[in-house]
Amino acid sequence: MPSSNKKINPDLVKERKKCSFNTLELTHLLDGGVQKTIERKSRENFFLDDEELQSKIPLEYLSHKEKYEEAVRKACLLFKKVNQLQSEGKGGMDNFREILGGQLGSAILKDGNPLTLHYVMFIPTLMGQASLEQQTKWIQKAWTCDIIGTYAQTELGHGTFIRGLETTATYDPKTEEFVLNSPSITAYKWWPGGLGHSANYAIVVAQLYTLGKNHGIHPFIVQLRDEETHMPLPGIKIGEIGCKLGMNSTNNGYLGFENVRIPRTNMLMKNTRVLPDGTYVESPSSKLTYGTMIFVRVVLVQDCATYLKKVCTIATRYSAVRHQSQIKPSEPEVQILDFLTQQYKIFPYIASCFAFQYAAALIWDTYNSVSSELETGQFDNLPELHATACVLKAVCTEECSRGVETLRLACGGHGYMAASNLPATYGLVTAMCTYEGENTVLLLQTARFLIKILQNEQNKPMLPTMKYLQDALRVQAPFQKSVNWILTALQKTAAGKLDLANKHINERVKKGMAYEDAWNMTSIELVQAADMHGRVFLVNTFIISVQKFKSQVSQELWIVLDQLLQLYAVNTILKLTGDVLKFTELQGKDVEVLQSWLEELLILIRPNAVGLVDSFDFRDEVLSSALGAYDGNVYERLFEETRKSPLNAEPVNKSFKEFLKPFMKAQL
Amino acid sequence: MPSSNKKINPDLVKERKKCSFNTLELTHLLDGGVQKTIERKSRENFFLDDEELQSKIPLEYLSHKEKYEEAVRKACLLFKKVNQLQSEGKGGMDNFREILGGQLGSAILKDGNPLTLHYVMFIPTLMGQASLEQQTKWIQKAWTCDIIGTYAQTELGHGTFIRGLETTATYDPKTEEFVLNSPSITAYKWWPGGLGHSANYAIVVAQLYTLGKNHGIHPFIVQLRDEETHMPLPGIKIGEIGCKLGMNSTNNGYLGFENVRIPRTNMLMKNTRVLPDGTYVESPSSKLTYGTMIFVRVVLVQDCATYLKKVCTIATRYSAVRHQSQIKPSEPEVQILDFLTQQYKIFPYIASCFAFQYAAALIWDTYNSVSSELETGQFDNLPELHATACVLKAVCTEECSRGVETLRLACGGHGYMAASNLPATYGLVTAMCTYEGENTVLLLQTARFLIKILQNEQNKPMLPTMKYLQDALRVQAPFQKSVNWILTALQKTAAGKLDLANKHINERVKKGMAYEDAWNMTSIELVQAADMHGRVFLVNTFIISVQKFKSQVSQELWIVLDQLLQLYAVNTILKLTGDVLKFTELQGKDVEVLQSWLEELLILIRPNAVGLVDSFDFRDEVLSSALGAYDGNVYERLFEETRKSPLNAEPVNKSFKEFLKPFMKAQL
Repeated sequence: MPSSNKKINPDLVKERKKCSFNTLELTHLLDGGVQKTIERKSRENFFLDDEELQSKIPLEYLSHKEKYEEAVRKACLLFKKVNQLQSEGKGGMDNFREILGGQLGSAILKDGNPLTLHYVMFIPTLMGQASLEQQTKWIQKAWTCDIIGTYAQTELGHGTFIRGLETTATYDPKTEEFVLNSPSITAYKWWPGGLGHSANYAIVVAQLYTLGKNHGIHPFIVQLRDEETHMPLPGIKIGEIGCKLGMNSTNNGYLGFENVRIPRTNMLMKNTRVLPDGTYVESPSSKLTYGTMIFVRVVLVQDCATYLKKVCTIATRYSAVRHQSQIKPSEPEVQILDFLTQQYKIFPYIASCFAFQYAAALIWDTYNSVSSELETGQFDNLPELHATACVLKAVCTEECSRGVETLRLACGGHGYMAASNLPATYGLVTAMCTYEGENTVLLLQTARFLIKILQNEQNKPMLPTMKYLQDALRVQAPFQKSVNWILTALQKTAAGKLDLANKHINERVKKGMAYEDAWNMTSIELVQAADMHGRVFLVNTFIISVQKFKSQVSQELWIVLDQLLQLYAVNTILKLTGDVLKFTELQGKDVEVLQSWLEELLILIRPNAVGLVDSFDFRDEVLSSALGAYDGNVYERLFEETRKSPLNAEPVNKSFKEFLKPFMKAQL
Repeated sequence: MPSSNKKINPDLVKERKKCSFNTLELTHLLDGGVQKTIERKSRENFFLDDEELQSKIPLEYLSHKEKYEEAVRKACLLFKKVNQLQSEGKGGMDNFREILGGQLGSAILKDGNPLTLHYVMFIPTLMGQASLEQQTKWIQKAWTCDIIGTYAQTELGHGTFIRGLETTATYDPKTEEFVLNSPSITAYKWWPGGLGHSANYAIVVAQLYTLGKNHGIHPFIVQLRDEETHMPLPGIKIGEIGCKLGMNSTNNGYLGFENVRIPRTNMLMKNTRVLPDGTYVESPSSKLTYGTMIFVRVVLVQDCATYLKKVCTIATRYSAVRHQSQIKPSEPEVQILDFLTQQYKIFPYIASCFAFQYAAALIWDTYNSVSSELETGQFDNLPELHATACVLKAVCTEECSRGVETLRLACGGHGYMAASNLPATYGLVTAMCTYEGENTVLLLQTARFLIKILQNEQNKPMLPTMKYLQDALRVQAPFQKSVNWILTALQKTAAGKLDLANKHINERVKKGMAYEDAWNMTSIELVQAADMHGRVFLVNTFIISVQKFKSQVSQELWIVLDQLLQLYAVNTILKLTGDVLKFTELQGKDVEVLQSWLEELLILIRPNAVGLVDSFDFRDEVLSSALGAYDGNVYERLFEETRKSPLNAEPVNKSFKEFLKPFMKAQL
């Protein structure tokens, strides 16, 4: 069996020589400065050089149960190391973000972390919704991991529509306790990560009943398991929900209640309270709890950028190393990266990585400024932030999922191998389309807001990416071969589609349909219009960012960033010409100009493709891919991976003697 | 824990009452007649009522090695039963087709069958390419499973471009043997199903060298393992390639050769021969071996129909049972099938099932008639059959993959559960985009043929679905709200796109580019044009079939089939308006007519949705889905599935004591 070769694949050496810009400059730009790069690398060394955090056998060979056990082992070690860093005063929140997010976390726990929700939901919810007194009692225990918590909201019967949750928490003033029950099978909590066998506490969202009246859903702290023995407490029905498309180490669980009693003081009471006699005291503003939901969606947009960068790195390096077929019969087999169709599959997604990152940065800033406003009682910009976070989450997760699969398929059969790490990445990415708000539902929420803006029923928009809605319908913009024209055309199209959808709603209402039914009948158009608005946002923030960089980066780098912007814009509009032809001055012959512009850009980007993905600067352990490693020794690595298969440890598997031989020897 | 309820979910009872046609009539139509339905059901009973063919623990909970062992157990039992049927004279080839294809096979071996290639490739290749003498020697042994074979063509370094294969078979006249070698790591065979640990023989495709000259690739029979001990023979390097996105029970293997000697008579010599002295005797026609490749692609189109029907059944039944959100605030939560956006996700794919089935039927007939022509030495229609099989394989596998994921996402979080059977189905379906010819490569092959037709450089086309290319550019066709107009518009668009791509190639050549480079630079447009031709084919065969049924089926059923045809056509053209606006008389305002036509059709089909998928008549064991069962008891079934998880067998997993408790008790 051939063994791995440590030298760099000559195709990659050649590619790296061709690069026209300094990849380190781009790495620094993407990290947010030299210092950030140094910190990131130091953190990566700390975690990835620790052999205990590697698995001896790749997870996919293990049974479901073994996968979980290995994940608990690693997760405990991982957070021990995080705490070590914290106690040394290094890194602060960045450590958690990296460990829980796409880059470092998914390198160590490739298929999910059973303790993530303790940090991402349990502690933040305590911080956001517990009273000061409750925080004193619980947060220290949670921070030091005396208790491990999760967040139990979704039920078997309800995800998106949380008002429909069925779990009840009924106040009993005699004992000053809440009594929790699952009145039906669909009331069982279902999905929370770590709930199956890992957490011993949970924040449970339930319908609050007191003095015979329902006050809607509220959060409660509930102990699930004995702190010493980990046995489920009486009345707690608990387990894991089983195998999934991906994330099979997250230990997603189910949870039912049969008359489980908790003290009154276990209701999280920062905003609303139940007094000992059962009196319900209202929240000053229910909008205060909105923040976490928006925050998570903002983080997902950033995660999309990270995952897509990983996958682009894998597909680009593989395509530079893989030779297949001839363009001319007389010449040798070419690098598949030289096929225009392959460039067309990969390069637009390299551009998307940048688009996502800039969009994430803008929405992150907006989130922070709106959060500050909320603390001073200013809620005016919240709906716009919410609408923007919804559409970006939907558009980026959808585009990212499609990208992962397009790029996996672009790697041919080898992309189908677990050793490529593309299948597991898809498992993580496609889940984002569903959780934290199903994409179609989110797009419809955005559409509702956009129509109000269009009709001037809402405050003036704060974001530069939203203002166009107020005048786009009146703008004249004959075709030009420019990114700015593309933006204007997309804006006109988004506004036009919204306006048309709105017209169709009104026509249906005039014919006697209820507004809600008219909305439903027009919802396909509304979803498409909101999606189009998301595209406008992405192109717009990309333009703004590249303009800003002009004075900050070298000319060599800026040229490449500008090419990527152009590619992103042209590719976006070419996929939407059906709409753009309808709502703008674009004509059939102009589409040909756009198509050849696209082709020119692919050729311009080709020599820098490997340089661009090198700039993303992923360690091989983060990529975890035989196809994507820095040295490009694809075939040697694929071969090495086969040695890890327990099936290959024996030349003859026992099933031969047990089943196959008797079958073959039988006279059939 | 609640237990399963055997009665039918009331939502499904209600839906079934609404159905406007006789579902049994449609079942018979789809099966090809009453008798075919009876035979299918009898076969399903024979296999699916056998409890030994069920797995006690769902495969996904097992380790990779256990999955393989369980698959060998089942595969041996399965083929024993097939042989039992054959010996009773029941069923003939239909048994094999069902067992090896999408419907019955994937119900029993959900993640692949390690013996499939023995029946699908090893035996057929012997039949097609072995001389009569060789057939006498080998076929009986293969039929009775004295030996188990596989087909080893693809290598680590070469898949699509088979001329590039590196394995060598060098003739040694002294011993009258071929000597097989893998001259490099990329020469290792990689991917063949069953090669890892199951097969003891293989047909190996290798570069033939004799008397110092290379004669290109040829097939050889090679023994891999000892027939008694199953130990790999000397010089045979063999094992499995590791985990994949799906098909983890197929035991895909690798294979390298180090001076492996086989008798001269092990070269398959039906068409070409090497004489004892090493003389190479040419084949009368290399086209004779073309057939198998086309045959497999034809079968894949049929498989696409089967898989998509399964997934449509699951998504439709789940959407009828699932209630979520309100359309009007005053009313109860609605069946999610009442959301127009949900109908838009599902119903067009129900229509695709029919489109695929009719396309598969036409190409199957064409395949048979061209095969008869080949036997009489007539090769004229082979290129057209080949081009058609290529584009249909590419278009149908792509649309089917997209469909599976769209429908999985339409089932929300529960679609992500392995218990939905949607993830495993995606694993099987997306693989079809890559194997048996990568889709982009196939589309380019079709494009090359279509351009010849367009330029009248080829024989006149035989297929009614191809003839349009000769005059579509000249046809005048102002917009009409009719399926026939849509077909004409799509034809004009396909011809227009091809013509434009051809113009761009010629322009590039005029500017001095080599034709091959011009082809590459135009390949994005060529791929899109070929894809468009595939859409034309699907709409066209759907129209022809529904016209034909008009006199054969009841009026009630015909109305529904016609609605599905309309939906398929309208949905196809709406996704392509960017091109259609350019190449036809379609105008912006007409798109609005098409959009509202689409919406009307969704509403018309809504009451029959459950009836339509009921007509596909899948047994629950074939669907293997908690979301899709006939009784619609989705939540009870999801819950039952959790009981099968070995992790749930103990209330506390050992990792608590080993890792979690020490971590929690440590003073962090």
